[in-house]
Amino acid sequence: MSEETPRKVAIICSKGTLDMAYPGLIMANAARLIGIDCMLFFTFWGLDIINKNKMDKLQVATVGNPSMGMPTFLGGIPGMGAMATSMMKKEMEKIEIPTVREMIEILDASGADLYACKMAMDMFKLTTDDLVPEVKEVLTATDFWEKAEGAQVVFV
Amino acid sequence: MSEETPRKVAIICSKGTLDMAYPGLIMANAARLIGIDCMLFFTFWGLDIINKNKMDKLQVATVGNPSMGMPTFLGGIPGMGAMATSMMKKEMEKIEIPTVREMIEILDASGADLYACKMAMDMFKLTTDDLVPEVKEVLTATDFWEKAEGAQVVFV
Amino acid sequence: MSEETPRKVAIICSKGTLDMAYPGLIMANAARLIGIDCMLFFTFWGLDIINKNKMDKLQVATVGNPSMGMPTFLGGIPGMGAMATSMMKKEMEKIEIPTVREMIEILDASGADLYACKMAMDMFKLTTDDLVPEVKEVLTATDFWEKAEGAQVVFV
Repeated sequence: MSEETPRKVAIICSKGTLDMAYPGLIMANAARLIGIDCMLFFTFWGLDIINKNKMDKLQVATVGNPSMGMPTFLGGIPGMGAMATSMMKKEMEKIEIPTVREMIEILDASGADLYACKMAMDMFKLTTDDLVPEVKEVLTATDFWEKAEGAQVVFV
Repeated sequence: MSEETPRKVAIICSKGTLDMAYPGLIMANAARLIGIDCMLFFTFWGLDIINKNKMDKLQVATVGNPSMGMPTFLGGIPGMGAMATSMMKKEMEKIEIPTVREMIEILDASGADLYACKMAMDMFKLTTDDLVPEVKEVLTATDFWEKAEGAQVVFV
Repeated sequence: MSEETPRKVAIICSKGTLDMAYPGLIMANAARLIGIDCMLFFTFWGLDIINKNKMDKLQVATVGNPSMGMPTFLGGIPGMGAMATSMMKKEMEKIEIPTVREMIEILDASGADLYACKMAMDMFKLTTDDLVPEVKEVLTATDFWEKAEGAQVVFV
């Protein structure tokens, strides 16, 4: 296989929380670092990751996330999500993980292809003006499959 | 590869919320539209998508979903989830996305294979009578891997 | 393909809830049962699954999970998550599904390779002392892609 086609990964980002934005971005970046072709497809809540007005304000999901180590009841109290978000951002900074906006710029510069999902944009009434310029194209799900042929698919 | 075996995708639907039911169904439909073999495996909460009595009542997850644009605290107030669900259904209708039930019928008619997970059915005490007739077979996880050989796997 | 390289699956466990720990573990086990090479990569909240002090206390996410069949509002009441967790554990036991700790032991004994994500460990300030001995190695995301070449990828 390696002679015919280069290795490729296709990462679908469907969630808009800070803790689920990073896994897709980090896996994409790691793929590019070792020369694997990489495309990202942002759909549903994942559009927030490439939305100019939202990408800097992604929040950690605290409620219903028992891994946070706080009771669900507390997670529902205003401010808890903000606190968890600020804590996670601090920890990410300490270990020198770039912000979401920086990750998008790095991915684009590294040659990863960023795409937005047409249907999700229609549903949320978004236009390309709402998105960062690094987004290369708006794709239908059919376009996605055509471009993702032969790729290892990761749905986050 | 294209000479030997046709391209195939295997989509695992493990969530029962409206916003996470659609990505799997839409990706499956898109795959069939361009002639890619497609199987769907419904497991855990994803069984709700093919449960005759639940499929029309799937709800959008609002709490702990910061992307909804409302504070977690508000998401916990009775009625907020229902409101978000009704809003999403209206938006989906406007852009002519079929209902979940219609998507299942379309997928079946298009030749996609729908399977239910045996272990999850046992856990939730479901029988095939609880499921829509479009479900072709109940599979174990082992059966799944056998049928999914060579497929691009999407776990939603 | 079968002549050149053995079939392989790479399962990424990114969630720490009981209901999302099982799908990855069960799919990994099923793969091993039919001789498919299998690696698991635990990252973000998924580290809880291999954390000695947390793996026995994973909770079902009730809030924001409409599939649980209880209103979001109730899910936020202290004790509801615990009740759902205890119910799920009972149902899993009835159908003879091993505990999470047992699943990890079974996977290791069956030849599956368990890896922890370096970045997530740094973020959560964990060391290998916090993890079960079945974890073979701590990997970067780049290492993950190198080991996962040719694998069907499942991101849970």
